[in-house]
Amino acid sequence: MFSHNKRLQYSVHVNECNPALANLMLEQFGGPQGELAAAMRYFTQALAEEDPGRKDMLLDIATEELSHLEVIGTIVAMLNRGAKGELAEGVAQEAELFRSLQGAGNDSHVTQVLYGGGPALINSGGQLWTAGYVDSIGEPTCDLRSNIAAEARAKIVYERLINVTTDPGVRDALGFLMTREVSHQKSFEKALYAIEPNFPPGKLPPVKPFDKVYVNTSQGEGDMRGPWNSDEHFTYVDDREAQRAMGDGQGDASVKMTQAQSRAVEAMAQRTASDPDSDPTTGADLGSAQGKSNGR
Amino acid sequence: MFSHNKRLQYSVHVNECNPALANLMLEQFGGPQGELAAAMRYFTQALAEEDPGRKDMLLDIATEELSHLEVIGTIVAMLNRGAKGELAEGVAQEAELFRSLQGAGNDSHVTQVLYGGGPALINSGGQLWTAGYVDSIGEPTCDLRSNIAAEARAKIVYERLINVTTDPGVRDALGFLMTREVSHQKSFEKALYAIEPNFPPGKLPPVKPFDKVYVNTSQGEGDMRGPWNSDEHFTYVDDREAQRAMGDGQGDASVKMTQAQSRAVEAMAQRTASDPDSDPTTGADLGSAQGKSNGR
Amino acid sequence: MFSHNKRLQYSVHVNECNPALANLMLEQFGGPQGELAAAMRYFTQALAEEDPGRKDMLLDIATEELSHLEVIGTIVAMLNRGAKGELAEGVAQEAELFRSLQGAGNDSHVTQVLYGGGPALINSGGQLWTAGYVDSIGEPTCDLRSNIAAEARAKIVYERLINVTTDPGVRDALGFLMTREVSHQKSFEKALYAIEPNFPPGKLPPVKPFDKVYVNTSQGEGDMRGPWNSDEHFTYVDDREAQRAMGDGQGDASVKMTQAQSRAVEAMAQRTASDPDSDPTTGADLGSAQGKSNGR
Amino acid sequence: MFSHNKRLQYSVHVNECNPALANLMLEQFGGPQGELAAAMRYFTQALAEEDPGRKDMLLDIATEELSHLEVIGTIVAMLNRGAKGELAEGVAQEAELFRSLQGAGNDSHVTQVLYGGGPALINSGGQLWTAGYVDSIGEPTCDLRSNIAAEARAKIVYERLINVTTDPGVRDALGFLMTREVSHQKSFEKALYAIEPNFPPGKLPPVKPFDKVYVNTSQGEGDMRGPWNSDEHFTYVDDREAQRAMGDGQGDASVKMTQAQSRAVEAMAQRTASDPDSDPTTGADLGSAQGKSNGR
Amino acid sequence: MFSHNKRLQYSVHVNECNPALANLMLEQFGGPQGELAAAMRYFTQALAEEDPGRKDMLLDIATEELSHLEVIGTIVAMLNRGAKGELAEGVAQEAELFRSLQGAGNDSHVTQVLYGGGPALINSGGQLWTAGYVDSIGEPTCDLRSNIAAEARAKIVYERLINVTTDPGVRDALGFLMTREVSHQKSFEKALYAIEPNFPPGKLPPVKPFDKVYVNTSQGEGDMRGPWNSDEHFTYVDDREAQRAMGDGQGDASVKMTQAQSRAVEAMAQRTASDPDSDPTTGADLGSAQGKSNGR
Amino acid sequence: MFSHNKRLQYSVHVNECNPALANLMLEQFGGPQGELAAAMRYFTQALAEEDPGRKDMLLDIATEELSHLEVIGTIVAMLNRGAKGELAEGVAQEAELFRSLQGAGNDSHVTQVLYGGGPALINSGGQLWTAGYVDSIGEPTCDLRSNIAAEARAKIVYERLINVTTDPGVRDALGFLMTREVSHQKSFEKALYAIEPNFPPGKLPPVKPFDKVYVNTSQGEGDMRGPWNSDEHFTYVDDREAQRAMGDGQGDASVKMTQAQSRAVEAMAQRTASDPDSDPTTGADLGSAQGKSNGR
Repeated sequence: MFSHNKRLQYSVHVNECNPALANLMLEQFGGPQGELAAAMRYFTQALAEEDPGRKDMLLDIATEELSHLEVIGTIVAMLNRGAKGELAEGVAQEAELFRSLQGAGNDSHVTQVLYGGGPALINSGGQLWTAGYVDSIGEPTCDLRSNIAAEARAKIVYERLINVTTDPGVRDALGFLMTREVSHQKSFEKALYAIEPNFPPGKLPPVKPFDKVYVNTSQGEGDMRGPWNSDEHFTYVDDREAQRAMGDGQGDASVKMTQAQSRAVEAMAQRTASDPDSDPTTGADLGSAQGKSNGR
Repeated sequence: MFSHNKRLQYSVHVNECNPALANLMLEQFGGPQGELAAAMRYFTQALAEEDPGRKDMLLDIATEELSHLEVIGTIVAMLNRGAKGELAEGVAQEAELFRSLQGAGNDSHVTQVLYGGGPALINSGGQLWTAGYVDSIGEPTCDLRSNIAAEARAKIVYERLINVTTDPGVRDALGFLMTREVSHQKSFEKALYAIEPNFPPGKLPPVKPFDKVYVNTSQGEGDMRGPWNSDEHFTYVDDREAQRAMGDGQGDASVKMTQAQSRAVEAMAQRTASDPDSDPTTGADLGSAQGKSNGR
Repeated sequence: MFSHNKRLQYSVHVNECNPALANLMLEQFGGPQGELAAAMRYFTQALAEEDPGRKDMLLDIATEELSHLEVIGTIVAMLNRGAKGELAEGVAQEAELFRSLQGAGNDSHVTQVLYGGGPALINSGGQLWTAGYVDSIGEPTCDLRSNIAAEARAKIVYERLINVTTDPGVRDALGFLMTREVSHQKSFEKALYAIEPNFPPGKLPPVKPFDKVYVNTSQGEGDMRGPWNSDEHFTYVDDREAQRAMGDGQGDASVKMTQAQSRAVEAMAQRTASDPDSDPTTGADLGSAQGKSNGR
Repeated sequence: MFSHNKRLQYSVHVNECNPALANLMLEQFGGPQGELAAAMRYFTQALAEEDPGRKDMLLDIATEELSHLEVIGTIVAMLNRGAKGELAEGVAQEAELFRSLQGAGNDSHVTQVLYGGGPALINSGGQLWTAGYVDSIGEPTCDLRSNIAAEARAKIVYERLINVTTDPGVRDALGFLMTREVSHQKSFEKALYAIEPNFPPGKLPPVKPFDKVYVNTSQGEGDMRGPWNSDEHFTYVDDREAQRAMGDGQGDASVKMTQAQSRAVEAMAQRTASDPDSDPTTGADLGSAQGKSNGR
Repeated sequence: MFSHNKRLQYSVHVNECNPALANLMLEQFGGPQGELAAAMRYFTQALAEEDPGRKDMLLDIATEELSHLEVIGTIVAMLNRGAKGELAEGVAQEAELFRSLQGAGNDSHVTQVLYGGGPALINSGGQLWTAGYVDSIGEPTCDLRSNIAAEARAKIVYERLINVTTDPGVRDALGFLMTREVSHQKSFEKALYAIEPNFPPGKLPPVKPFDKVYVNTSQGEGDMRGPWNSDEHFTYVDDREAQRAMGDGQGDASVKMTQAQSRAVEAMAQRTASDPDSDPTTGADLGSAQGKSNGR
Repeated sequence: MFSHNKRLQYSVHVNECNPALANLMLEQFGGPQGELAAAMRYFTQALAEEDPGRKDMLLDIATEELSHLEVIGTIVAMLNRGAKGELAEGVAQEAELFRSLQGAGNDSHVTQVLYGGGPALINSGGQLWTAGYVDSIGEPTCDLRSNIAAEARAKIVYERLINVTTDPGVRDALGFLMTREVSHQKSFEKALYAIEPNFPPGKLPPVKPFDKVYVNTSQGEGDMRGPWNSDEHFTYVDDREAQRAMGDGQGDASVKMTQAQSRAVEAMAQRTASDPDSDPTTGADLGSAQGKSNGR
């Protein structure tokens, strides 16, 4: 069960209202690399986890991410606080409010007009948060790798936000949030490697020899060799013909159908058959200058 | 530039039409862990990549994933081929077609009625593919980790599909596809560790001491210690008070506003102030049996 | 800041695994009337709230909804626990696993194959959760009404779920969750009416006389009068002509354009003008039996 | 059946083209609080409604909302009319057109480039309209509350749009639209309270005593009491322990499984067990400066 | 302005309740080829249309599509009417209600549990309607082609629904709806060809010679010639080399950057450079049996 | 199977970095009329196509569209290349980076902060690509019409982009891409008319006489006649009464229910019946000044 204390995990002291900056911050509130996505990723994993240690860790970090959602949402609320009041109370002239909406930039007009200055579960471009951002699949050796990657991405988005922020209070809080992602990544790494073996994930073994094949599908100037396709670890398949129809078949497709099915498919094929020997007048012919004289 | 050869990368020989199985296969065609998501993840990364080796590798693997999209889509098409013809041509009685739609199960009715038996960019539950599944952010040390995780997830979904498939031809092709994910994961791992250092990602250093703190936010029976929160690598913060207001502040939030902003916020607060000392009759009171006598 | 205790707010004792029932329960986990939507609605409101009483209440209820998310998610996890293990470990024959996936019904195949039996942020039909479900707009007299409505809807979806559930442990927990929605609705009602006046919401007064007009736009057998359009409270506009061009205008639209704009619009109109006096042969004519002889 | 008359319900006389203002107006065309959402909310309710009076009212108001969709869409079309022609006909220099697109602000570039200046079913930030905005659930005592809340929200978004608009013709039409929302809210209120009782919604009674409990989940400085949690109407549960495991249980979760299920779950747990006593070298160790010397 | 008459455009007499059939019908209510998509496609086009004839036609057909939305929605409501009552009132045993939900099939459980038996703006698989289905772009020679295609698609989905329906009243109404799509297609065809010329759409002429080139990008067994790539109308480019770098360039990409930009890009490239000559130990190595001995 | 060559289909030489222009280009990368939508439309059609000629053509064009995706994506990458480096490396002052983000306009801030300057599968407004843009339904006479329309739309969006671009290298590449759409439209036209007959699509004949009826649903000043509703081809139904209840019925709706169903529906109707003769005090009454004195 969750409980809440009104003190934030980290203090937020903003130097001045700035709706455009507020809007950039939404990236980590309702964006794909943001705190709701993080909290929900770990929380949903925790619910179905059988391993007591991982379950505990996932609950710890999910709960902390909710607290980060609160911190970043509070930053948004503070940066928008002035604009919120001014638009709601209509204290300024309309022209001035319009200019201020326009001048702020960065889609912050949506945040003002639709959400009234409150933090909304959108990214900095106004895209609604979707559970498609959560990639948990219920296999720990995958989910931990997903979590490691997610923490790395979140670290970078915070880094970019710090790079465009001058407000010292906002920078300070962003630095805390960015750092916690580093710490969480470390925990998830430890948890992944505490499972042995963890590669390949799952139970079914790979089918030989395809697990050691590297297919050079993109060719031309710029082809490179490196550890990711080195002869030491991979069979490098360069020949176009050898890349096709790997395995025993001819690269073809077939399905056995019942007689009734075959007849129905054949009927459909006949009904919609194209005549390759025709030269039909077309709608485009009708619609073009030349076509019109032909077609009518 | 892409080119195409009509031979598949791997042959597809399906034993019998089975729309319900076809529908499960859509998970890897238009689902979040499927081949379109994979191809687009690597392709979009490749376009902005500066490192020639990684760019080549990303193009190689993206192109191969497109070929996998073709293989899994061909499996779907074969499994649906009979049903496609029968519904299009209306060869059976309506009642029979209805029963066959219903009996197939697994949402395959959508695939028949809406998509006419063709493979659609939906997952096995009918959810439209969305670019929210692609998590590239343009920083190689993150994107490679995302790719590693994505390959691991795809391997598992193929494994689950194999576990529920009896058709030997489908199992054979799924085995190939599953195995290629293992191989791709290896390449991405090599590429990640060929960057040194790659942790923490990005340039900004973490803020001390928060990168080594583990916050035990979830407490009670089930608390565990392990390498992910061990004293050797982390400062374990157990005390509720110490978890709050980390850093120098009080866990509070503030923003400096102009006088005009303060006045507007104050006006809004007054207009919408709630009276904590009131005991108002409410709509719910009006609407309930007891409330009605009170409220009217 | 949030913290977590490993005891649930309400115990969950499930009588037997039932993936189809699990899937129905997702409606209140990742569906539009579910607990995540509730928690996020109140939490985002709380962050920008200026009134201390309402802010406290919103945080209280948001936090409780997160605990409800945990309870309903735990129900899902318990109902899916057996299927999760069996598919992951592939312990049964493929045909048996396929039949069990199919037989369960209710889209539960997605939950198994994609999410591995874990609770996912989808509704019972597999639709990904979207922040479009959250309707907060940052004006308390609106948001409280939205919350009242949301609690009423959630109560009913729980009632329906209880009506289709036989497992006594699940019913018991659902009864608790349903009841809490009633209690929350009461609190939001009290909070709304503790603001005086709260109707009409906002500051701008309605434009007379349109606030007391009822337009009978749907006519014919079935027209009814009642308190919602009674003469006591409304001017009932029945006449079709009087319904149009309310106000002083003619029901027309215009915009003043610069000369350059007018010329550009005129040019576009001319380029794409349709000739009402023509009788053109069309693509459909070409494509139909009769048309072909005409068109070619 | 619907019919249409070419006169608008309210005249639209726009003073000058203004693509940025047009874009703000989209909020009420294709946004969550806009007219399509309103029309569809009431229309879908009407179709399944059994009560003749409510069915009539829902059809009346749904039809009027469609007419409002036409009014607000016409405002968008008028404001964009000049830009539409200029871009379509390419009458200006490219640099001038680019500057004009950029200068307009507010995402109006999408409206120009993608939609050609026509009103699109997006909100002012470009987010596609989704049926997730419609919250009808088929229980009148809920749906009427949803409608009341929706009208209140729409009133406020119109108020905000008026606050940022200087064009007198646009303001005039917005004032009409805003006012009609007030009138509709009144009708829905009357219709809700014409059902007796209407609280709690539905048939199943709440489970005692949980309907009168208020859980103080958020604690600390800022805790408040008010009518929403007053002792007169609620049992105020302040103690953290008493908040957990409400009811008879221990706050734990369980499910009875068959032996086969238990064995499969156990196998999965073993395969993915983490070793809490290990201190594994991790990918992060390999990737960091210090780790590299350890790990290789 | 819209008005409404309570008589339907076409009568709906359903023979028996059938929630599974109801659910299939949703495909044309809230699906991509359904009536809401049609109505909104034509209505949004009409609002910005400059040609009086087309504007009139678009309004006529948009309004009729709204009436079709009413007809198909009424079919859904009738087919669900019994189930709606039974679940709402809980008149049967839970087990019976659960079986009836499960037995109905076709995702109809969502329609019952979430939407209470009312028609919802989802397709037959539960996917929420999205404005992404509307493809209007504000150029009549395109939009009319889009409308022609949309009518053709809608005709086929109705045909498929008729093919699986035995209820004579439902078939009768579906036949009417299907036929009206044919009629609308004819009108749109006439309107397209009443614009002369209408091909190529827009103003900018194609760049010679690329408008007459056919690129045989997919090669191998199955290559075909036909009117779509015949020498009479196209230059058929078969040679792989000739397919690349069409035009004067080398198929390469470049951008001129300022010195500061070049330096920044170079710094990023260096920071994230991969060493192609390394053979790093990876996370996968650590995680696999063999790797563990190497890596630790 | 796909393969790739590192030379582009058309060279991309960009004159200077321009993130705002980059963002506009995203419209054809991840927008509804863009190259991914095109490639996926044709590719999914090809997989289920039975006609060998069309299958070949669809694969040819799908593959070329992937190459166009590469060209437009490369344009985006080049235009963003400088900004990518500067933000990633943080080489400028924060204030300068913030100003540069803000000044660029056009939502390009999302592309920088979230996607790091890489091309993302979003449109120019940040809307995530969705498979809802793909309208294939598996009937060739429909899908070809959809393809024709899609090519026409794509041609126009390229035309608009050219109209706002001054960079000669970008204009040159856009001209090539625009022209290829014209060529593809021609091929699809030829393929459609090579099927005879192709109108009406599908097998079921229209129901007489409704295929030749034009319903004048929108009336008033502006009514027009033209070939789309001319007496020569259509029966023009002008009379409002004749527009309703077409066919033999009364425009009413009915369903036969079992006794149990009728009783349940009746119970629901009674429980939620509204009293048309009441004049209830409402929540709005309570909340308004006047209401408060009445209601309490």
